Amino acid sequence: MKIAIAQLNPTIGNLTANAQHILDVARQAASQDTNLLLTPELSLCGYPPRDLLLDPSFIEAMGEQLQHLARNLPKNLATLVGTVMPNERSTVDGGKPLYNSIALLYRGQIQQVFHKRLLPTYDVFDEHRYFEPDGESNYFTLPTTSNSDPLINIGVTICEDLWNDEDFWGKRHYGCNPIADLASAEVDFIVNLSASPYCVGKQQLREEMLRHVATRYKTPIIYTNQVGGNDDLIFDGSSVALNRAGEVVCRALSCQTDVVEVEFDAQTRDFLPGSITPIPTSEEAQIWEALVLGVRDYARKCGFSRIVLGLSGGIDSALVAAIAAEAIGAENVLGVLMSSPYTSKASVDDALALANNLGIATHTLEIAELMGDFDRTLEDLFAGTEPGVAEENLQSRIRGNLLMAIANKFGHLLLSTGNKSEMAVGYCTLYGDMDGGLAAIADVPKTRVFSLCKWLNTRQPGQEVIPTNIIVKPPSAELKPNQVDRDSLPPYEILDDILHRLIHCHQSPAAIIEAGHDRDIVQQVLRLVRRAEFKRRQAPPGLKITDRAFGTGWRMPIAANRQPLSI
Amino acid sequence: MKIAIAQLNPTIGNLTANAQHILDVARQAASQDTNLLLTPELSLCGYPPRDLLLDPSFIEAMGEQLQHLARNLPKNLATLVGTVMPNERSTVDGGKPLYNSIALLYRGQIQQVFHKRLLPTYDVFDEHRYFEPDGESNYFTLPTTSNSDPLINIGVTICEDLWNDEDFWGKRHYGCNPIADLASAEVDFIVNLSASPYCVGKQQLREEMLRHVATRYKTPIIYTNQVGGNDDLIFDGSSVALNRAGEVVCRALSCQTDVVEVEFDAQTRDFLPGSITPIPTSEEAQIWEALVLGVRDYARKCGFSRIVLGLSGGIDSALVAAIAAEAIGAENVLGVLMSSPYTSKASVDDALALANNLGIATHTLEIAELMGDFDRTLEDLFAGTEPGVAEENLQSRIRGNLLMAIANKFGHLLLSTGNKSEMAVGYCTLYGDMDGGLAAIADVPKTRVFSLCKWLNTRQPGQEVIPTNIIVKPPSAELKPNQVDRDSLPPYEILDDILHRLIHCHQSPAAIIEAGHDRDIVQQVLRLVRRAEFKRRQAPPGLKITDRAFGTGWRMPIAANRQPLSI
Repeated sequence: MKIAIAQLNPTIGNLTANAQHILDVARQAASQDTNLLLTPELSLCGYPPRDLLLDPSFIEAMGEQLQHLARNLPKNLATLVGTVMPNERSTVDGGKPLYNSIALLYRGQIQQVFHKRLLPTYDVFDEHRYFEPDGESNYFTLPTTSNSDPLINIGVTICEDLWNDEDFWGKRHYGCNPIADLASAEVDFIVNLSASPYCVGKQQLREEMLRHVATRYKTPIIYTNQVGGNDDLIFDGSSVALNRAGEVVCRALSCQTDVVEVEFDAQTRDFLPGSITPIPTSEEAQIWEALVLGVRDYARKCGFSRIVLGLSGGIDSALVAAIAAEAIGAENVLGVLMSSPYTSKASVDDALALANNLGIATHTLEIAELMGDFDRTLEDLFAGTEPGVAEENLQSRIRGNLLMAIANKFGHLLLSTGNKSEMAVGYCTLYGDMDGGLAAIADVPKTRVFSLCKWLNTRQPGQEVIPTNIIVKPPSAELKPNQVDRDSLPPYEILDDILHRLIHCHQSPAAIIEAGHDRDIVQQVLRLVRRAEFKRRQAPPGLKITDRAFGTGWRMPIAANRQPLSI
Repeated sequence: MKIAIAQLNPTIGNLTANAQHILDVARQAASQDTNLLLTPELSLCGYPPRDLLLDPSFIEAMGEQLQHLARNLPKNLATLVGTVMPNERSTVDGGKPLYNSIALLYRGQIQQVFHKRLLPTYDVFDEHRYFEPDGESNYFTLPTTSNSDPLINIGVTICEDLWNDEDFWGKRHYGCNPIADLASAEVDFIVNLSASPYCVGKQQLREEMLRHVATRYKTPIIYTNQVGGNDDLIFDGSSVALNRAGEVVCRALSCQTDVVEVEFDAQTRDFLPGSITPIPTSEEAQIWEALVLGVRDYARKCGFSRIVLGLSGGIDSALVAAIAAEAIGAENVLGVLMSSPYTSKASVDDALALANNLGIATHTLEIAELMGDFDRTLEDLFAGTEPGVAEENLQSRIRGNLLMAIANKFGHLLLSTGNKSEMAVGYCTLYGDMDGGLAAIADVPKTRVFSLCKWLNTRQPGQEVIPTNIIVKPPSAELKPNQVDRDSLPPYEILDDILHRLIHCHQSPAAIIEAGHDRDIVQQVLRLVRRAEFKRRQAPPGLKITDRAFGTGWRMPIAANRQPLSI
């Protein structure tokens, strides 16, 4: 039996186009005598549809599209399509009005419907907001190509259904394990239809887990993942099939649309070896691919064909410019240099060298006059005060205004360039350098910004992308004379380690000090992180590449007095 | 038996201060021979604590504070305190690691713990993100004051536990009804400890529901609500007790901290008549109270003692200035007038008249020169283009910069002044008039802005608050010559009705047209609402006063192509 894994990139809510993509791959697959086509979780509406699901006319339209697909898909190709289904018992039994479902479309009809059993409601996931979990084990039966072979039973799981192996995790997250239930039902293999967002190291984790599950239950398994950027989330594809021995027999591309085939051998009841795309070799290579996809898709799905950004000569804007150029083509990227009296000549030279390396256009604007004008306008009100943060922020906001004016005038997408370390401690200006439609590296810690830039320079031997001076000079906001980041912040190696322990490991201040960090620095960082909550609340969506990003999965109160602060 | 309802205003996360407030009211209550003290849901940490709950050291600190309370509360006063409790079975059975609980503290110890059974996960609520629902019915027994009377059984419910009466709602929302279970257990009365945010008409709804429940189950009931503003959410208090006949016997203040007493008569097994604070008479009066509380608490809990805002001479900033003056005192509010060449003399006069009525200080800044400077800076780049939205936005952003500079310089809280109708259709400038720490009227539709201002002028007969000219003149952004809102938008009565149907009633475009609206206008509004998603994502928290506000309860994708758009 031939199975095609369609690793699709839907646009959220665009039912017509998403359905058409499914039809296109289905026709192609049918022409190659494929028997079963797999598409990702919620492939009809794209994942995550969020509050679009609260709109009854949207649900109705999805039902119509599903019928349209059922009628128009090739008759002899069994196709699994991700969609939502109404929970008919909702008002009687209580419970949410929808299911997160997979429809089996075959021979012109919706043959069977399977509902998701485990609903992630943590981090960026809100599935209990919309869906009712289902209690039943899901599988279906297909005839084999030869009449002499027995029928094939295929277990269906949806994303999270796979992620509750108490043996693998050392604990249970949910009351039941759909994989174990399907193994008990003695299915021939299990498919998992997912929309699993990328984070560093995720694919390795997925494959370890899949290997564990395949070998523990002696069941071949196919993991079909969505691909594409949807706001802050980047879905990296990398769909994969494992045989009963837990060996990868097939892997699709990372961060690209792909359709790959797996063959199930009715005699051995296992998958045959297929084509295996290698995983990108380094974490930097993976992150780079993901960020490029995130920027490209955000621009494309929002209807932007050009990008503008400020080039300060610093490493953050350098990295973002490189990502933008790769995402939508250097010819579609405009870098704007906006020097003030505090801008060093080195910064200008570095920015121009970068633009030259990337092949992007630049434009230079002077902001000294505007700074003077703002100062004069506020002269009376500010009389007798010392220049400080207000004036520094003004510079950043003048730059933000200029960039937004350009974005508005020409219909460009403005990318903001702040990194995660800055966003964490609030070392950034709201309505200034935080301006933008998308924050491309908001989840990339500063130390990782450095390692990405170094990696980028080794990608093609002899071809420097990021000018070396940008990598080696001490980072500076250049908002006052001779300012460097280290005047205000701990060294980034220390800062990033503290932030990692705080944000990702949920360590207490006491534990962080125990680990060897200076008490005063830990307290300072903690205070800064908490105080910057109001800035983060107003930040543009930031591409998520770690297991805990600021944004939709970070829900902190602002007007709070969090304890314990003292250590 | 004397019962005290402590309608408290906790600061999120400030465990020490919140515990101290509970101790203070408990000692006061004990001195008046009270037997039972009720505090709101999660009274120890404040509601909603959001992702603070993901931090183990925060949970630990809460456990310690609860022990501290148990030891230090008056020994003979039974006190119900809202707290979280670990779910010890979590890793074994699966399930979330915490319960949303009520602890019964009595005689120096934690005597019993009750867990919330129904967990709201919709709108602004995310309880399935943190908590496991509990299956058990909750009640406890207290001795009466006289030994000859039988013991008193008291049922405990937490907020949402009350909101699932299928008779009242015409359908079930959850599988069980904790109130019905307690009635079957024949408790003497039920307490409901809540943190229920305000929206227009909410108190009437609560009391209708409470009346229904009290009479249906022939059970007296006490509803104890949190009070105070926490970011976007305003908790309006209005705690209330109803006797077995469903009559209100006691009501606490609306939008203020309060402690009120109810007496349970052991003979009649019912509450005795007590003191009843009336509900504010009009919706405008209720909204006003709520907004004032929301602004006051956001400022106070964030540590601001002064407020700054831009005064355009228009009705939105006039209303926000009036709210600010009532919230923190006119002497602590600074209104900034920032005229451009498009600002009419009438606008300046109106703004000054308003400031005079309110007694707030003003400062006037001219922005013409800055506008010219920006134009000159961008001259080369913009050569050959017509002035348009980019230039209009620049004006708004210059004003935003000036206001933020003042806020930064003097440590004031900047309030943004946009209304809900503007936020819906994107008739506002990101990084311009949207700037601020809090959006005071972001959930108030424009038509309601008008009715609030009219109501305000009748509050004290003969005392005009909002100058009449501000109310009667046609609204204008004054970003180009002779501009009025009606050039770009449908009349506000029509716009607000369409928005209400779309946002609150989830009506389809077809249904809205069916209701009598013009097809082209409906399509235009729909398109504008969808296109403005990126602006709303970066807006400051907006005080919620309706059942569906933009903000934490509005989770829409940005890079989406939502269908059906065509009608």
